[in-house]
Amino acid sequence: MKALIFEGPGRKTLKDRNIPVIDSATDAIVRMTKTTICGTDLHILKGDVPSCTPGRILGHEGVGVIEQVGAGVTQFKKGDSVLISCISSCGKCEYCRRGMYSHCTTGGWILGNTIDGTQAEYVRIPHADTSLYPIPDGADEDALVMLSDILPTGFECGVLNGKVQPGGSVAIVGAGPVGLAALLTAQFYSPAELIVIDLDENRLQAAKRFGATNTIRATGEEAKQRVFELTENKGVDTVIEAVGIAPTFELCQEIVAAGGVIANVGVHGFKADLHLEKLWSHNIAITTRLVDTVSTPMLLKTVRSGKIDPKQLITHRFKLDDILDAYDTFSKAADTRALKVIIEAV
Amino acid sequence: MKALIFEGPGRKTLKDRNIPVIDSATDAIVRMTKTTICGTDLHILKGDVPSCTPGRILGHEGVGVIEQVGAGVTQFKKGDSVLISCISSCGKCEYCRRGMYSHCTTGGWILGNTIDGTQAEYVRIPHADTSLYPIPDGADEDALVMLSDILPTGFECGVLNGKVQPGGSVAIVGAGPVGLAALLTAQFYSPAELIVIDLDENRLQAAKRFGATNTIRATGEEAKQRVFELTENKGVDTVIEAVGIAPTFELCQEIVAAGGVIANVGVHGFKADLHLEKLWSHNIAITTRLVDTVSTPMLLKTVRSGKIDPKQLITHRFKLDDILDAYDTFSKAADTRALKVIIEAV
Repeated sequence: MKALIFEGPGRKTLKDRNIPVIDSATDAIVRMTKTTICGTDLHILKGDVPSCTPGRILGHEGVGVIEQVGAGVTQFKKGDSVLISCISSCGKCEYCRRGMYSHCTTGGWILGNTIDGTQAEYVRIPHADTSLYPIPDGADEDALVMLSDILPTGFECGVLNGKVQPGGSVAIVGAGPVGLAALLTAQFYSPAELIVIDLDENRLQAAKRFGATNTIRATGEEAKQRVFELTENKGVDTVIEAVGIAPTFELCQEIVAAGGVIANVGVHGFKADLHLEKLWSHNIAITTRLVDTVSTPMLLKTVRSGKIDPKQLITHRFKLDDILDAYDTFSKAADTRALKVIIEAV
Repeated sequence: MKALIFEGPGRKTLKDRNIPVIDSATDAIVRMTKTTICGTDLHILKGDVPSCTPGRILGHEGVGVIEQVGAGVTQFKKGDSVLISCISSCGKCEYCRRGMYSHCTTGGWILGNTIDGTQAEYVRIPHADTSLYPIPDGADEDALVMLSDILPTGFECGVLNGKVQPGGSVAIVGAGPVGLAALLTAQFYSPAELIVIDLDENRLQAAKRFGATNTIRATGEEAKQRVFELTENKGVDTVIEAVGIAPTFELCQEIVAAGGVIANVGVHGFKADLHLEKLWSHNIAITTRLVDTVSTPMLLKTVRSGKIDPKQLITHRFKLDDILDAYDTFSKAADTRALKVIIEAV
């Protein structure tokens, strides 16, 4: 089969590999229909993710059809259409039983990281019963690819952790795909203000189309001033950090209102300053989270009922044969205006 | 009347001052019975609290008897015994109506800070109806002085924000009076492990008497190793920071378990490093809070029912005439073994 291989920092190839086989009774083999590329894949290619070693097939998102199941799989059978979660979950360990699948002792984010991933014709999914979701009849598969990772990430790490509430004020710092996923899902809870901050005009225009009440094309002090103008000098109740660098995390500290929450979504490579000398008495919370994908069933229902249309996030389409072009397009988003790309495996 | 006056950094005097008068219809004048000294008073004397200017009567804790009430006060009358909250609350503004009294737009922590405080024979209490609490008949007034500030601070900022739960694990970093108040009130929720970390053997012995399951006399890497030994290498579900300096806050980041909470109680003068490169995927929360004293009625009931005995925190007693000696004793706690001192105004 064809597969996109991480060959070490800065290097990737599309190669022939053996089709994966059942390794454990709880595994399933899925024939991929559609997959996509995540910002995290770019991090791996930069060499930022030491757990992912050369030779690995990348990718942790996608939909497909069950090809084979292990003897212990009871919820799926050959021919079922499935959504693959970016988080593998055994459903049995202490963390899974608390709903913290991200920290599953034999799962978590392993796909396309410590085991081979979804940017291939086939993928082996461990803990299949609790890591795959049946695709409802008639569902739009493109939209569902967005539910493997970015929708639950924006929703759980940003919106749920950020306690978005009716009438509340929200600022989302960073309008990349995950920031926009937070923007879409924040609207479930009817906030009064939904401010999106970024430097890319194209992404801010997308944010406006997706429901932002205000957009701010600025950083630092200028962005802070604009937020304060929009919030009677109080700051916002929920700040969602969807970039992953120290300066944006520090902007979040500047614009959070007393009693508010900073919900970190960004993947950080370095420490940041925490201004406790100001914040100790500000009655705030800061949350971090690797997505658990515990909300996937809920999100499937919201897509099906038309409450959100994650297909809006898709800007480009490729065949698996052209995945190197897809990487090129996705990694040059400022020029190509790419948000999410769909890669068709068949 | 006699009053303890802040004369500028490093200087305080016991002086004669005029008895305060009603300034607003919602004021009460309270004749002080007992007061105490807080670590925050020492911060003011170091010059760390710019909002408190020379000439101010210090103190934000105590019990007394109503001497006079303004025309708008309906809940108290002359002769009532009252507990004074360190937080003044109008009960009417947006923040008070959300239970965030600490950020009351005309109150908050003003006593002994921006208006004259309780280390005197009399004090004017603004917003009396919602800033004083009736003292139940037969209550021990010494114990109640602990309810003006340190008990609600340890409880709200540490235990409630830290989500202490039955069977959970808790580490309290810093065994000063507020850390010990968190230790006492954490036991309402029956955690399995209650680990107290400090360098002062005397305070750790107090912690053991007050219910700590383990004490650790160490900092940094050594303290971390001990916590991991005690928690199957997982860290603790709740870490309560009750010191207020960067190194202890960073220790908290080292010992919090995945899915846990760092509840900051300490008053910080400087920023700290936040290790987002490790914590971004650790599913944790960090909370900050200036005490709201919204739990005061609840704490009064727990003292009355004998669930906790805050009197254990009292180590020394003085008369108001000797308050300079009381400051001396309190500020040299490592030598004098002082926890909280009681100062009798009459």
